[in-house]
Amino acid sequence: MEKTISSKSVYKGRIIDCYEDVVQLPDGKQAGRELVKHPGGVCVLAVTNEDDVIMVSQFRYAHGRVLLEIPAGKLEYGEDPLECGKRELLEETGYTAQSFEYLGRMLPVPAYCSEVIHMYLARGLTLGERNLDDDEFIEVMKIPFDKVVDMIYHDEILDGKTQLAVLKAKVLLNN
Amino acid sequence: MEKTISSKSVYKGRIIDCYEDVVQLPDGKQAGRELVKHPGGVCVLAVTNEDDVIMVSQFRYAHGRVLLEIPAGKLEYGEDPLECGKRELLEETGYTAQSFEYLGRMLPVPAYCSEVIHMYLARGLTLGERNLDDDEFIEVMKIPFDKVVDMIYHDEILDGKTQLAVLKAKVLLNN
Repeated sequence: MEKTISSKSVYKGRIIDCYEDVVQLPDGKQAGRELVKHPGGVCVLAVTNEDDVIMVSQFRYAHGRVLLEIPAGKLEYGEDPLECGKRELLEETGYTAQSFEYLGRMLPVPAYCSEVIHMYLARGLTLGERNLDDDEFIEVMKIPFDKVVDMIYHDEILDGKTQLAVLKAKVLLNN
Repeated sequence: MEKTISSKSVYKGRIIDCYEDVVQLPDGKQAGRELVKHPGGVCVLAVTNEDDVIMVSQFRYAHGRVLLEIPAGKLEYGEDPLECGKRELLEETGYTAQSFEYLGRMLPVPAYCSEVIHMYLARGLTLGERNLDDDEFIEVMKIPFDKVVDMIYHDEILDGKTQLAVLKAKVLLNN
């Protein structure tokens, strides 16, 4: 257990807020803690009847390259994760789904960030119209599920949430 | 492709640095990008001959609770990931390993953070002396591999890198 002694806001952004806190450790000593606050997110592994995965390809500034990911987005504070998943799937890819199965949640960087990512498996897909944010340039593609697994093992798909949602679904469906 | 127009340092911490950049989008318009720079990390899925996973349990301030994770740590800039993995495994748990198999790398939060996490599967374990950092209060435990998988599917293990390394190894070893 670490008790907060003081908390200093050091940055307020559009996506993240940063804090520099001082905590009391179990032995009574004090230590500094850097903390990134994030509203959390949702990702959707959408699989067609032909076992293709709906993937989005977009430039990721933090890595200076295009990455292949499953559709995902940031939660509004207080938003229901499932509603967020449906919205992001539709906005980014144009797909709606008949069924959403919860694949659990994960903490991408528990050491310094409050972010929680909820994962869903969506099936029974129908293609409609997508609706991107102004600063989103996203290409949608369909890749066979087994090929996606292969790409994960060859570090051709690097995004953590994508790797995890795909392997969680694979283990679940094979058992 | 997004071209950097300007980059402003907004926070320099011990673990992370934050920047507020302006980029030029493919259509010529400009957009803001929040960027967290992190040196990257390594995690080690260490499995005993009896198929137990070496886990560490520690309080994670960003989530206000104790989390169960595999041993992991931050890369020094320029450090070899494998050396970092060996060091963190030893420091946090006291174990050394005969073999380290690379399980690939992943980007935990590509939307705003440069962090890359390298994953290793370590086997042939020998227990020695551990050596924690001053502000680390970590409990080590052994949990059967199948139980760990079960805990992942019941959201009892929430850490993303732990979930991913375990399932990557499971799919690899079952195939």
